[in-house]
Amino acid sequence: MNNSGGFGQTLQNAILTQRPIVTLLTDFGTTDGFIGVMKGVMLQIAPDIHFVDISHELPSFSIESAAFLNAWSYGYFPPGALHLCVVDPGVGSSRRALVVETQGHTFIAPDNGLLTPVLTLSGDKIIVSAAKPEYWLSKISNTFHGRDVFAPLAAHVARGAAITALGEEISDPVLVHTPPPVFTPERIECRIQYIDHFGNLVTNLTQPRFDQWTQQNGYDKRRVVIQSGDVVINGISETYSSQNPGELTAVFDGYDCLEIAVTQGNAAKHLQINIGQKVVIQPAAGKGA
Amino acid sequence: MNNSGGFGQTLQNAILTQRPIVTLLTDFGTTDGFIGVMKGVMLQIAPDIHFVDISHELPSFSIESAAFLNAWSYGYFPPGALHLCVVDPGVGSSRRALVVETQGHTFIAPDNGLLTPVLTLSGDKIIVSAAKPEYWLSKISNTFHGRDVFAPLAAHVARGAAITALGEEISDPVLVHTPPPVFTPERIECRIQYIDHFGNLVTNLTQPRFDQWTQQNGYDKRRVVIQSGDVVINGISETYSSQNPGELTAVFDGYDCLEIAVTQGNAAKHLQINIGQKVVIQPAAGKGA
Amino acid sequence: MNNSGGFGQTLQNAILTQRPIVTLLTDFGTTDGFIGVMKGVMLQIAPDIHFVDISHELPSFSIESAAFLNAWSYGYFPPGALHLCVVDPGVGSSRRALVVETQGHTFIAPDNGLLTPVLTLSGDKIIVSAAKPEYWLSKISNTFHGRDVFAPLAAHVARGAAITALGEEISDPVLVHTPPPVFTPERIECRIQYIDHFGNLVTNLTQPRFDQWTQQNGYDKRRVVIQSGDVVINGISETYSSQNPGELTAVFDGYDCLEIAVTQGNAAKHLQINIGQKVVIQPAAGKGA
Repeated sequence: MNNSGGFGQTLQNAILTQRPIVTLLTDFGTTDGFIGVMKGVMLQIAPDIHFVDISHELPSFSIESAAFLNAWSYGYFPPGALHLCVVDPGVGSSRRALVVETQGHTFIAPDNGLLTPVLTLSGDKIIVSAAKPEYWLSKISNTFHGRDVFAPLAAHVARGAAITALGEEISDPVLVHTPPPVFTPERIECRIQYIDHFGNLVTNLTQPRFDQWTQQNGYDKRRVVIQSGDVVINGISETYSSQNPGELTAVFDGYDCLEIAVTQGNAAKHLQINIGQKVVIQPAAGKGA
Repeated sequence: MNNSGGFGQTLQNAILTQRPIVTLLTDFGTTDGFIGVMKGVMLQIAPDIHFVDISHELPSFSIESAAFLNAWSYGYFPPGALHLCVVDPGVGSSRRALVVETQGHTFIAPDNGLLTPVLTLSGDKIIVSAAKPEYWLSKISNTFHGRDVFAPLAAHVARGAAITALGEEISDPVLVHTPPPVFTPERIECRIQYIDHFGNLVTNLTQPRFDQWTQQNGYDKRRVVIQSGDVVINGISETYSSQNPGELTAVFDGYDCLEIAVTQGNAAKHLQINIGQKVVIQPAAGKGA
Repeated sequence: MNNSGGFGQTLQNAILTQRPIVTLLTDFGTTDGFIGVMKGVMLQIAPDIHFVDISHELPSFSIESAAFLNAWSYGYFPPGALHLCVVDPGVGSSRRALVVETQGHTFIAPDNGLLTPVLTLSGDKIIVSAAKPEYWLSKISNTFHGRDVFAPLAAHVARGAAITALGEEISDPVLVHTPPPVFTPERIECRIQYIDHFGNLVTNLTQPRFDQWTQQNGYDKRRVVIQSGDVVINGISETYSSQNPGELTAVFDGYDCLEIAVTQGNAAKHLQINIGQKVVIQPAAGKGA
């Protein structure tokens, strides 16, 4: 474990730091061999890829869930990493295959809105419709472009291909906008953007934006009311464990977002709340009284 | 990501392309540490292995499911890859451990029929009963030969051992034959060979064989009737999404096989159909009328 | 696969055998991106890590399950491997982060008793409370220290940091003792320490200790009675398959521990038995008669 430096060490760093990272995010599941086969296809093209699975258990065809997890996760990886995201309800149709360079990272995904969050960040972007079949498998199925189109594209980039070699640059990628949180002095309106495997309801309100709002309006962070449909929660807890089992709780979570949870329970099932539902945050009545 | 070539690049390719690939296919699940421990055992013998998981969620003891996924997946990997497949109802008995070289790949599996599809392909084969305990762990349990026998065998081959060093060559591996599709001018009889985690029913009829049959007999590909027990489906869809939720659909899937699915539902549960059940394809009545 | 030796081979071994192994054991699940992000954080610090997942599906907050799987699995890895174990009900509180060197391995975990089994083995130990924030991420959340604290610690050690650089050595780690098996000439009292994903009930009685007890007392290994609450099992089977579906069976399992199982069923659900429940083994009545 203790590296002694010298030529060997320098060489090791020189070589190993260059292994291209490819992260994978899909709704294919891990039980039927699809992810393994995608990795095999990539290793035929670029044998030194370092794969990291983000998730393969996204809700089927949920572009919004994929968009959220991709936008949240990529920045934890070293610059230069490739992010292969395949949630593809339009497989077999004529939707385009995108390869995008932005934020120092490369994203490979179907052109269905999945990349909206990274495409709408400021910063330089190269957006390519990767339509040249010489960068795909030679045989393309109607049902598995993850293997036939997207995996080979990622591997060719991992191996050093410039993304502009893969097809034409475009400027009209599909964008699927979801309403961002709305801030007024009296309230914040946000929405559920993701449901995790515990059934916790993840909103699109981040902690920094919430802190800014309480500060600007002179509110006590701990004295707010969170409301969604019939559900009312008083206060934001510091940790999951601060409530009793079965109790509703609101907490800023590992995504740095406000989350509604049922301690040791499944909030999504219990509350019948789904992605897209509105959540309102207000100062507790009687504040300052 | 852009490799600048030169000595470093040449060296990198020379070194990294030699990392042996070991794919893993088991029914052990990923929750109880068994797969991790198998990888640890292999890394003690061959520290540079590149592992790729195919599936660990095969139905318990389903040799036919394992045989199918192995035969389907291996060819997507680079020649020289090792494929470790452990579905082992006979663990603790005297069934042999096989190491097989064929099709440019190496397969390590219990001698229980799992390798039937690759052993019945044409082409050169070396089949070894890997009975030399010096290539196993020193202590062999009754219940976990995946760790004690098969993982060390794979790792020794990954490290460079000739497979003929592991034991005696044999010519009588266990073969478990399942009936292939039967084609007559009037109909195709095939069978369910795999059920995926969505409950989709995967037959052993591949698209090229189906296309050949329609062409030879002058049938319209889109005007066929698929029948299995009481289930009748008219026509083969181009993609999963072409039917309404809850509707039965037949489609050529990511395995390139005809598949019976319930759009956004679980066909296996809904139709009470299991592996081995017969499926018949006929031209639609009134064809050409 | 066949390495031809010479300079290239020597160099390859020199380089690749040095890739640090980091095993991961958590209760975070694999569906929500948390594990992927932890790996990304580590790759930013130590790009050549070889990750091996042990399990991410531990029962939520079950420190005893984590302690068991960690203690069982680490020894199958090469000396020098790092073992990152995060089951962390106290996240966001002031519990310490431990880095421990013992048994030739390094363990990174919250100071909540998870490492009790390895800390109570004989042998040299260095135990560090890794409190220096320069070895954490710059921003620490309340809910995800796996990413913010434990992953960076593991990566810094993987990269070569001495563990004593990460904080102060301590001698009072939290230990959570669970009762070991009690042996008398008439009986063994052990307990359920783990429940696997099939619902099999894993006791803390290992095969060598059981064999020793039968030998010392002149009992026939196959003529014992296993009792837990109302459950009575006659004899220990050699393999899982030796009973009929639905029947109760006791067997020494892949963990080398006595296990109570329902053949092709879920013993934990069926018998309503949980972690901690007592199990008694006695010689069968009439022995020697």
